[in-house]
Amino acid sequence: MVAVDTLLKPRSVAIVGASADAAKLTGRPLVYLEKYGFTGAIYPVNPRVEAIGKHHCYADIAALPKAPDVAIVLLGAERAIEAVRALAARGTAAAIVLASGFSESGPEGKARQDELKRAAGSMRLLGPNTIGLVNVTDGIVLSASNALVADALVPGKVALVSQSGGILGSVLSRAQAAGLGFSKLIATGNESDLDVADFIDHLAGDGATRVIALYLEGLRKPDAFKAAVARARAAGKAVVAFKVGRSEQGARSAVLHTGALAGSDAAYGALFRQCGVIRAERYSDLIDIPLALAAGRALEGRRIAIVTSTGGAASLLADAAGMAGFETPPPDAATTARLKALAIDGAALDSNPIDVTLAGVKTETFRTVLGAVAASPVYDAVAVVLGSSALREPETAGAPLRDCAARSGKPVIAFASPDAPALVRALNLAGVPTFAAPESVAVALSAMRRAGEAREIAPWPAPIAVPKGVNALLKPGPLNEAESKRLFAQFGMPSVREIVVATPDEAAAAAKTFGGNVVVKILSRAVLHKSEIGGVAVNVAPGDVARTCAAMAARFAQATRAQPEGFLVQELVEDGVELILGFHRDDQLGPAILLGMGGVAAELYRDTVLRLAPLTRRDADEMIGELQSAPLLTGFRGRPHADTAALAGTILAFAQMIGAIGDRLAEAEINPLFVRPRGQGVVAGDGVVVVKGG
Amino acid sequence: MVAVDTLLKPRSVAIVGASADAAKLTGRPLVYLEKYGFTGAIYPVNPRVEAIGKHHCYADIAALPKAPDVAIVLLGAERAIEAVRALAARGTAAAIVLASGFSESGPEGKARQDELKRAAGSMRLLGPNTIGLVNVTDGIVLSASNALVADALVPGKVALVSQSGGILGSVLSRAQAAGLGFSKLIATGNESDLDVADFIDHLAGDGATRVIALYLEGLRKPDAFKAAVARARAAGKAVVAFKVGRSEQGARSAVLHTGALAGSDAAYGALFRQCGVIRAERYSDLIDIPLALAAGRALEGRRIAIVTSTGGAASLLADAAGMAGFETPPPDAATTARLKALAIDGAALDSNPIDVTLAGVKTETFRTVLGAVAASPVYDAVAVVLGSSALREPETAGAPLRDCAARSGKPVIAFASPDAPALVRALNLAGVPTFAAPESVAVALSAMRRAGEAREIAPWPAPIAVPKGVNALLKPGPLNEAESKRLFAQFGMPSVREIVVATPDEAAAAAKTFGGNVVVKILSRAVLHKSEIGGVAVNVAPGDVARTCAAMAARFAQATRAQPEGFLVQELVEDGVELILGFHRDDQLGPAILLGMGGVAAELYRDTVLRLAPLTRRDADEMIGELQSAPLLTGFRGRPHADTAALAGTILAFAQMIGAIGDRLAEAEINPLFVRPRGQGVVAGDGVVVVKGG
Repeated sequence: MVAVDTLLKPRSVAIVGASADAAKLTGRPLVYLEKYGFTGAIYPVNPRVEAIGKHHCYADIAALPKAPDVAIVLLGAERAIEAVRALAARGTAAAIVLASGFSESGPEGKARQDELKRAAGSMRLLGPNTIGLVNVTDGIVLSASNALVADALVPGKVALVSQSGGILGSVLSRAQAAGLGFSKLIATGNESDLDVADFIDHLAGDGATRVIALYLEGLRKPDAFKAAVARARAAGKAVVAFKVGRSEQGARSAVLHTGALAGSDAAYGALFRQCGVIRAERYSDLIDIPLALAAGRALEGRRIAIVTSTGGAASLLADAAGMAGFETPPPDAATTARLKALAIDGAALDSNPIDVTLAGVKTETFRTVLGAVAASPVYDAVAVVLGSSALREPETAGAPLRDCAARSGKPVIAFASPDAPALVRALNLAGVPTFAAPESVAVALSAMRRAGEAREIAPWPAPIAVPKGVNALLKPGPLNEAESKRLFAQFGMPSVREIVVATPDEAAAAAKTFGGNVVVKILSRAVLHKSEIGGVAVNVAPGDVARTCAAMAARFAQATRAQPEGFLVQELVEDGVELILGFHRDDQLGPAILLGMGGVAAELYRDTVLRLAPLTRRDADEMIGELQSAPLLTGFRGRPHADTAALAGTILAFAQMIGAIGDRLAEAEINPLFVRPRGQGVVAGDGVVVVKGG
Repeated sequence: MVAVDTLLKPRSVAIVGASADAAKLTGRPLVYLEKYGFTGAIYPVNPRVEAIGKHHCYADIAALPKAPDVAIVLLGAERAIEAVRALAARGTAAAIVLASGFSESGPEGKARQDELKRAAGSMRLLGPNTIGLVNVTDGIVLSASNALVADALVPGKVALVSQSGGILGSVLSRAQAAGLGFSKLIATGNESDLDVADFIDHLAGDGATRVIALYLEGLRKPDAFKAAVARARAAGKAVVAFKVGRSEQGARSAVLHTGALAGSDAAYGALFRQCGVIRAERYSDLIDIPLALAAGRALEGRRIAIVTSTGGAASLLADAAGMAGFETPPPDAATTARLKALAIDGAALDSNPIDVTLAGVKTETFRTVLGAVAASPVYDAVAVVLGSSALREPETAGAPLRDCAARSGKPVIAFASPDAPALVRALNLAGVPTFAAPESVAVALSAMRRAGEAREIAPWPAPIAVPKGVNALLKPGPLNEAESKRLFAQFGMPSVREIVVATPDEAAAAAKTFGGNVVVKILSRAVLHKSEIGGVAVNVAPGDVARTCAAMAARFAQATRAQPEGFLVQELVEDGVELILGFHRDDQLGPAILLGMGGVAAELYRDTVLRLAPLTRRDADEMIGELQSAPLLTGFRGRPHADTAALAGTILAFAQMIGAIGDRLAEAEINPLFVRPRGQGVVAGDGVVVVKGG
């Protein structure tokens, strides 16, 4: 998108509503453009001012000497619309609208935003309700943010795209303090036109950007987001996202329904997982993870050397790393020998943490220690603890640390035990990721490990065509159980062997053909949860089937004041693990597939996994592996290994069904889905399908 | 303990091994004593120096003009022992030994520490391997810590007791930066004599201390810890603990054995819970929780008003609070009316977060807003978001915030959205708990809520006497199932109805007396896990019992090359929820009781709860309530409410059994424990007991 390129790197900028008072918000953009070294043309527009500084001030947009590449519109909502109309008429490539009072403020604002969009025509818009953007790489500031008042901006390899302008300022301020530099900073505001996906797409091709950090409130175009992230990932960039709004969903009380179990935050989690986006769980992670990844090193394994001069803080770090699944093995014999040759008095050099004591914190000694440890084949990364001695003499450990990071290809990171903001900042600026919290080190290591693992992202699969027989089955309203299973069969999903009968006597006759006890059910589309009205009987002897059916029909009649459509006599599956396979249409992110343990586990233990449709085979395999109860499928305590390959196939088939049928499908669930021992496949024990329009 | 009083507030201090070089570690204690205003006598001891500053320096301890109250011993390990001997001989009340090279350094060091302890006799010791202590309240520093070099110490209401000297310095440095003040700082080192419990006990009576913060590596005397914490809690003090060493346990792979499932970190968790100690989960919590509690306000409910001038950061805070279970209801109509009367342009005053916008951040307006919100009956606390405007004009929001905190009885806290260390520090020093992370606010609120809830701590129950018939049952080695159940019965724990028989035919005859299907088992003390060798058959028809027993005996003979002791014929329980009740002897903390869901849930979902013995009734009730599967016991999806009262009684009885039998008991477990519907009690389905010495 050429317009986004122009927006981020304009040759000329109009400032509509510019003030000559630098202390005012409307005075800032011009000050910032000059302060940060913009070399293009600046056109202030304000009918009440002749000039601002050395710049001639234009009475209106029509008076501009030529169409600006970009305009920053500082007017209130109503006047901003007129300015946007005039800018579009002049042929401006893009406008940034700061005013609030649009869709964030209710229905009237929503209408105003629609008008703004119409006024822009083919001109691109950033905002409204945005604080603007900063192209740090090229020294171009198109923003009125407070956060830019203070110091010089630290340039770096991280681009930040934020849906909140206030948070953009907050992250910038925190990052500057921590020594994290940025390439681009963009607040997308109400996203009337350009949204977060447009900027990810642009940043995918931005040579100055290695890490794309996102602050998200909600995605308006999930498919564009997926595509943009895929492009960024393919270009070798890491994408990190913090998503606000987890707790409204978390607080929702659980009911055993696919949708409620999944919840919207889980859908975002699935989206991030499937796109290869690293999720920032805590606010500070949105700085710590980019800090870790900006160094551009992937962690190739989970074995961490901890080098320290102070025991307590090293325990703290080892503990945090261990909690995150990292190992801290002792050094190999050759490395220990190299370390012991240094003859450091009182040092513990054959265990990990490797404690060199204060005696070891001498520049040359420490340089040798770090070099030896980084070179050891036992370690995938080196984490150094900085104690209070580093406050007094930051270079004694700092110089060896920088050298080690420069020479070793492995990640080299540091943890400052005392309060040491200046030290943390200096090391980060020097390219050694350094953190103030032991848990941040663990988060950083985990992110670097993710970056080491997840290099390939499978393409999102294309939808399959709807099989021939499907349309005839899709009568509006609920299908009965037998019809639901016929639909599943159309997509290659097998069900238990079953016979549909009309009367108790027919049921008894059918039961005899199974050669053993059977399952007997009411057949009715009127009741989705048959077992709640006593409409399911398991393990019934053939001789008891007629009686069971009659009693069931009586209970059914009492509960529904109607007759059942018939009865189902089914094979009794005793060697299967019972799962639930369902789907849920997320408000924002579309159809999602849910796999859960059957029985009470899905609800009591929240033993469910969610992924957005469409699914890849890897998604299906990961879903199975992520169930807490996955061991039940893989030989737990002498059980037979279940047919997980067939299960993955059925999960994929179910997702293909969801994709192929599309919006006509209101509900679909297989519960239970029996997963039999390896080689024996899976079968649907029961199924619910509801077609829209009934 | 008078010696501890003297140690913390001596009138005279000897510094053994004092150096005249203030830059050396051995030069620091004298410098610190003077710098922080110690008014008592100072006796440096060093044979090679005449005087240090204005102080005469003594050649040896014998030469001191009188016995000092306290001595700081700065000598190396071997010479420290001699100094301690000499100090004890002079009648010194307590000595602080800084040297390392004692029990932390292996068996030789352990022997050295024993010698040190003997040399001290009745003189009390702090250390060895300690950095000393600081009595901030009275300006007495008995330490060589680096962390004391810099600024003046901020006095406050928090006492810190740390088992690591390095961490004491780290926490002190971080706390000073955050504006958290201390009353006392004590590093206990190797705890050869005085330990963390001794200082908690002292601090319980210290008028200057409101919160006791602990950094723990492991407790040497858990019972003394419990007693000291109980005293502190009874005196109205909050106790907060960070315990390092969670991950070694967390990483241990799970096996379905009581001990492995529980793990030592879980035992510490239980200890803290039972003592009313608030656990700091992250390192930063060890500062954030004391910050929150030092203000001395308990949170009486979970409804939080968030007042902000910036939307993004307020969402962040609402989200973090929501994740921690807090509610953010909108203001009541009267409060909204009061706020709207202020006519703040663009403000959102009828929802929560209450967004006053930048227009609302004017001193008088903001004062009125905070006053109105704090007075609203809808809220239990007020949390204020400080945006970037607070960096430019800290007093505009700061002054109203301090006033509100001073006037309202409710907790009033703040979150700084941009990087604002000076602002955070200033507000904390002014008594408004202020945090730099949204998650810290949630942690602070949770801690204040805990302080609001947990005012009463039940006393630890006394052990019961061993019932008469017990000793006869305690033959060394494993008991068989029937014997185990007889032991349970002695403590009032009922089992399923069962008959012990010798032969398959006797079993068949016994089965007929049950009036239905039965459970049949091998009876043998040789096999603890009968089901693994096919020694358990459930739901056996009486007619099949003889055949089942014969087959079982054959399998048993094949597996063990021995004959079973007999057979058990048992009542079939079909209406019970199956739990596991076991015990585990923690290396450090002693016997612990474990309650878990039966079947695979205890292992797959880690659905277990641990408490240390002895138990109170409240402990038993909490254990039941904390099971993830607790809803299964309380009417889940139409099931009958289980007899939770009987279950609590059996948990207590089991704990009493553990306490009464004591060390003779190696293993004890009831698995399954059937919990029947309300009014029908619980019964042990099976039991394992192993007595020591077999």
